[in-house]
Amino acid sequence: MQKIPVGVLGATGMVGQQYIALLAQHPWFEVRYVAASPRNAGKSYRHAMVGRWQLAAAWGPGVGDLILEDANEVAAGVSASQQGRLRFVFSALEMEKEGILKLEEAYAAQGIPVISNASAHRWTPDVPMLIAEVNPLHTDIIPIQQKARGWNQGFIAVKPNCSIQSYMTPLYALLKAGYEVNRLFITTLQAVSGAGYPGVPSLDIIDNVVPYIGGEEDKSELEPLKILGTIRNGQIEPAVTPKISAHCNRVPVVNGHTACVSLEFGAKKPSVEEVKAIWTGFSGLPQELDLPMAPKQPLILREEVNRPQPRKDRDADKAMAVTLGRIRPCPIFDLRFVGLSHNTIRGAAGGGILNAELLKSKGYLG
Amino acid sequence: MQKIPVGVLGATGMVGQQYIALLAQHPWFEVRYVAASPRNAGKSYRHAMVGRWQLAAAWGPGVGDLILEDANEVAAGVSASQQGRLRFVFSALEMEKEGILKLEEAYAAQGIPVISNASAHRWTPDVPMLIAEVNPLHTDIIPIQQKARGWNQGFIAVKPNCSIQSYMTPLYALLKAGYEVNRLFITTLQAVSGAGYPGVPSLDIIDNVVPYIGGEEDKSELEPLKILGTIRNGQIEPAVTPKISAHCNRVPVVNGHTACVSLEFGAKKPSVEEVKAIWTGFSGLPQELDLPMAPKQPLILREEVNRPQPRKDRDADKAMAVTLGRIRPCPIFDLRFVGLSHNTIRGAAGGGILNAELLKSKGYLG
Amino acid sequence: MQKIPVGVLGATGMVGQQYIALLAQHPWFEVRYVAASPRNAGKSYRHAMVGRWQLAAAWGPGVGDLILEDANEVAAGVSASQQGRLRFVFSALEMEKEGILKLEEAYAAQGIPVISNASAHRWTPDVPMLIAEVNPLHTDIIPIQQKARGWNQGFIAVKPNCSIQSYMTPLYALLKAGYEVNRLFITTLQAVSGAGYPGVPSLDIIDNVVPYIGGEEDKSELEPLKILGTIRNGQIEPAVTPKISAHCNRVPVVNGHTACVSLEFGAKKPSVEEVKAIWTGFSGLPQELDLPMAPKQPLILREEVNRPQPRKDRDADKAMAVTLGRIRPCPIFDLRFVGLSHNTIRGAAGGGILNAELLKSKGYLG
Amino acid sequence: MQKIPVGVLGATGMVGQQYIALLAQHPWFEVRYVAASPRNAGKSYRHAMVGRWQLAAAWGPGVGDLILEDANEVAAGVSASQQGRLRFVFSALEMEKEGILKLEEAYAAQGIPVISNASAHRWTPDVPMLIAEVNPLHTDIIPIQQKARGWNQGFIAVKPNCSIQSYMTPLYALLKAGYEVNRLFITTLQAVSGAGYPGVPSLDIIDNVVPYIGGEEDKSELEPLKILGTIRNGQIEPAVTPKISAHCNRVPVVNGHTACVSLEFGAKKPSVEEVKAIWTGFSGLPQELDLPMAPKQPLILREEVNRPQPRKDRDADKAMAVTLGRIRPCPIFDLRFVGLSHNTIRGAAGGGILNAELLKSKGYLG
Repeated sequence: MQKIPVGVLGATGMVGQQYIALLAQHPWFEVRYVAASPRNAGKSYRHAMVGRWQLAAAWGPGVGDLILEDANEVAAGVSASQQGRLRFVFSALEMEKEGILKLEEAYAAQGIPVISNASAHRWTPDVPMLIAEVNPLHTDIIPIQQKARGWNQGFIAVKPNCSIQSYMTPLYALLKAGYEVNRLFITTLQAVSGAGYPGVPSLDIIDNVVPYIGGEEDKSELEPLKILGTIRNGQIEPAVTPKISAHCNRVPVVNGHTACVSLEFGAKKPSVEEVKAIWTGFSGLPQELDLPMAPKQPLILREEVNRPQPRKDRDADKAMAVTLGRIRPCPIFDLRFVGLSHNTIRGAAGGGILNAELLKSKGYLG
Repeated sequence: MQKIPVGVLGATGMVGQQYIALLAQHPWFEVRYVAASPRNAGKSYRHAMVGRWQLAAAWGPGVGDLILEDANEVAAGVSASQQGRLRFVFSALEMEKEGILKLEEAYAAQGIPVISNASAHRWTPDVPMLIAEVNPLHTDIIPIQQKARGWNQGFIAVKPNCSIQSYMTPLYALLKAGYEVNRLFITTLQAVSGAGYPGVPSLDIIDNVVPYIGGEEDKSELEPLKILGTIRNGQIEPAVTPKISAHCNRVPVVNGHTACVSLEFGAKKPSVEEVKAIWTGFSGLPQELDLPMAPKQPLILREEVNRPQPRKDRDADKAMAVTLGRIRPCPIFDLRFVGLSHNTIRGAAGGGILNAELLKSKGYLG
Repeated sequence: MQKIPVGVLGATGMVGQQYIALLAQHPWFEVRYVAASPRNAGKSYRHAMVGRWQLAAAWGPGVGDLILEDANEVAAGVSASQQGRLRFVFSALEMEKEGILKLEEAYAAQGIPVISNASAHRWTPDVPMLIAEVNPLHTDIIPIQQKARGWNQGFIAVKPNCSIQSYMTPLYALLKAGYEVNRLFITTLQAVSGAGYPGVPSLDIIDNVVPYIGGEEDKSELEPLKILGTIRNGQIEPAVTPKISAHCNRVPVVNGHTACVSLEFGAKKPSVEEVKAIWTGFSGLPQELDLPMAPKQPLILREEVNRPQPRKDRDADKAMAVTLGRIRPCPIFDLRFVGLSHNTIRGAAGGGILNAELLKSKGYLG
Repeated sequence: MQKIPVGVLGATGMVGQQYIALLAQHPWFEVRYVAASPRNAGKSYRHAMVGRWQLAAAWGPGVGDLILEDANEVAAGVSASQQGRLRFVFSALEMEKEGILKLEEAYAAQGIPVISNASAHRWTPDVPMLIAEVNPLHTDIIPIQQKARGWNQGFIAVKPNCSIQSYMTPLYALLKAGYEVNRLFITTLQAVSGAGYPGVPSLDIIDNVVPYIGGEEDKSELEPLKILGTIRNGQIEPAVTPKISAHCNRVPVVNGHTACVSLEFGAKKPSVEEVKAIWTGFSGLPQELDLPMAPKQPLILREEVNRPQPRKDRDADKAMAVTLGRIRPCPIFDLRFVGLSHNTIRGAAGGGILNAELLKSKGYLG
């Protein structure tokens, strides 16, 4: 089988690099098009990345020789598309919101599907915000989106913020098992890679904690509601529960976001053992379809009293599994636990690729 | 004025060292007696500390030449007391609970007041657990304790766990201002020095977080209740509110415990501005008495969006102030904030010294 | 092909764990026997490792159920050998030198080859200290060792200290290319995993450097001489050059030892470009034999001005390659460079496995 | 005594902040004028520093209310000088070399002495590069500088790079004691604060080492020669020995540069004990004059085998002492040791203030 050619917008940033690295050995997709800011346009990817490539992993064959295009030049993407060098793009654009909104729409309007990691379109009502194991049915909004906007093959699908990955799937597994969840207190301890590169200055984080990440608490509190929402009248109507209070901290960890969670059920309350069974047994559509990037088991339980830990658990199952531990009662709400996921893989590029695999399986990528 | 001679039990451990360092220039007290485990007994303090002294600060004149006694040999302390080399002892003992219970009682029974940092006696009903700004009146239990046990000058007073210092005084300030607090969600990000030396292995904490500290969550949830308790029938009866849910994490920070707090008021709810005014204006007995170790202002407010931070705020006002920030509404409870205090100074040796100053001022130390 | 059963002595320590993890998917060997200190004997490996397993990687099938033997009980190993559960052992013993000397000899005397990571036998004159790419011919001492000691199939082969791996192979490549090297100044920046677990206390290394590692400078200066030595009169006679001055530091890095090297050639001096060509082109017997653990290219050159770096380069080629960079003239000696290798893989368990593969290929393991 | 009013150019950067903090309680000088880049001009210092102030220490009374001037507007400085708000300026300018060269000259030409931390003028032949304990006599070039340039009271004096402070004074102490030093191998392990703010990205340094700092090796090798130079024909003629080879690394340490040094004496070679006596007994003009910022003992010896260490020794004697340890023979050269100094205090702002005190004592500051 011939691989599907794909493009990466924002290919030189942290998430862009992670896309490039993860796609190096992908069985379905191969990177044939890279675009970034104008100042890098015209350079080979290899040349542009001297001193900027942050990963231990390598890029795939041929990627170093690709010439970076200016991501603002949609025409370049269209031309590549016509030449068979890209079927769709992963967007890891880093620019102001307005710019991303317009650029992603321009690509889609030109027939190029955009699978985005950027936050700009997360609250656009006809754009699905996908976690492949949680709301794969939200892809049903795509034909509606295309029709309303007069787009043919192009569309926009986004993924949520990295900070919610450590509790969103366990939350959903409980809902799916029939337990209502009313309220959640969440405190995150987030890795520095979440801020991109150069990102967090070392003077701010060595021997230190920063108890604030701009915009992150709002995202952590609100994005789950859209993911749990319902398609109605041509748009995704957010759910109204659970109510979430999030406190987001930056800690001196390279990769891996940890979330300490307290959770209040509705009237029906499972026991700790039932919760463990629900999580261990949880499986979603990506597992059913055996998608390449899907973890075998989306939720891994560690019984040791002091796990999960970012350095030891972030890479579980291709860094795509969420690891859970310290499941115990809460003196105020019902249940407490700790969740952990790899923020630039499960929470960014890996999650985006899994979304693309899901969309491909459903026929949205030709 | 001649300084009061004091002893330090457990003088070679982390908290013991911090006592020695802080007392180096104390205007009232001077260290004349040091005791530790049998294996160090007979060595000079200087000799025993080669390669073990962890602090940048130095010990006081003469301390290096003191000969370490075996802390288990209460007779040595009594003899030193008779020779005028100690009026009371700071206990920073590190051993199993039963051993500390007995040893501290033995010293007290021999007429030597014990001002302890250890957790063993925290729940002994006639032993006060003091934060000098919060419950100085709990010293009233001391004559009752002495009478019930047939002790003359000796007594035991303890201080609470380091993890609660970052939220206990702000909580108390609100209560004192007339606002009931029903419930508190707390997530701590605690420094490695809290685990003593050697303590946390570097392999467990570089590029990592450990979402568990043995026993710490219980202490964080329960100790505030005793501190807010009432002396009744010869013992301190713990308060029944607020209800606390604590999640305690170890992070790669040398000193300084951070607490992310969500707080639910009773019927009467102050505005954010009122809370700020209460905290900025808060002052306690140590401030009134102008005790040497007392911070001028017990609660410091930082208005920057990303403070407090351990490395930048832990040393505020001799490392004895609690620094507060990010005061804002909570979508579930009423109020959220971040508190920070220096765990081995405000939360351990400095707090113990402040307690001793309080007790001296009240006449309990002769 | 059926896999060769092997044992790991010291299976619960850091290097032991790394052996277990690396052998999980090894094409030739499988772990069927694990031994450690008496206090763990009788427990399943899974049980003994609760809260002690430090690695992200997992152990192989069946290993969790193996019952730990007491490594001091050589008879248990002999019995396992007779039952076909071990053909040879990897020694990652951590105990005092005398104990290791005797234990490793006892296993060998009983017909069990010992491939050791311990330092005890490194200076035993008839024991080869092997880096598979550098001195594979030193295996010729094995028949002499066996004959002199009256051993049949058993023998002892060791590997050198982790600190020398970052400069030993580049040094050898230059010698092999015909350039004498007279003197070397080396400063190492070593990872905490080199000290085992619990190893370096976090209080000693967060926001800190420790400019001393016990015994490490002697090993770094002397072990290269034995590796470059000659078999003569039934023993390995160390070389007399190059003279090495080593300064060893511990830095806050999890894995990966960095070495800053200045090197003085003899009369014949290659240019910087010649040195680069020698290193890029270097290949040894493991590469020729295509051994499973051998890196394709033993020495990797990075041209970026700020590489190699431990976090980004330590895992190069299964963490078995040495990465080199900053190759430039020295104002005092002739050449300067920075070398980096993974200390618990290339420098410990991975190097030991590669030695075993070499010995197997040469017929020493039956 | 009324304090001398001073200005700080580059007052918002890391070194500028350190100047402001150290001068908060200075007995001779007080900050009355602050200048920085045009984008901050017109803001109060307090306002400009919200979220940028990196230090635990506070600024002095009145400093928060000072209005930042544009450092490029020399006229503003002249006007402040005429109003008695500044007698001289500390330059902590961060801009390209040409800009600093011209600006510092412009201030000096207008009668305002410039005591600079910038590197721009370090190799200007008639500008002294001062370490107050080492070459205080180089201030004799100042009248020559003034005369040659037609300046009245203004002049420029600089201090050397932070990286050399950990070995320059010990080197000088040996020379002063009559021992020639021919050659030095130096490897530095430098703190992130040396790169300013935002400086080193955390993604580059957590769990990592960067074996390169742009321009630092040249400075480390060459600046000592000017400091040891001789005033001849109206300029400072650099010394020709010792020859230095420096390798500079960035490590995950907040403050404190460590240097591992090997040193070759001339024909006359002191014993290790003599070296220790020379260093312990060393004292310079700042000590003789009892200058406020001068450490009592410029060189402190630690006998513990694993010291000095940055976190434990950087703050020795107001962070102005150099701490030495691990003094031992070298297998190649004669002597090895480890030196440590605080890079933003001894190596930057503190060293600059000490230079100002020296110049004031000599009458150069009116």
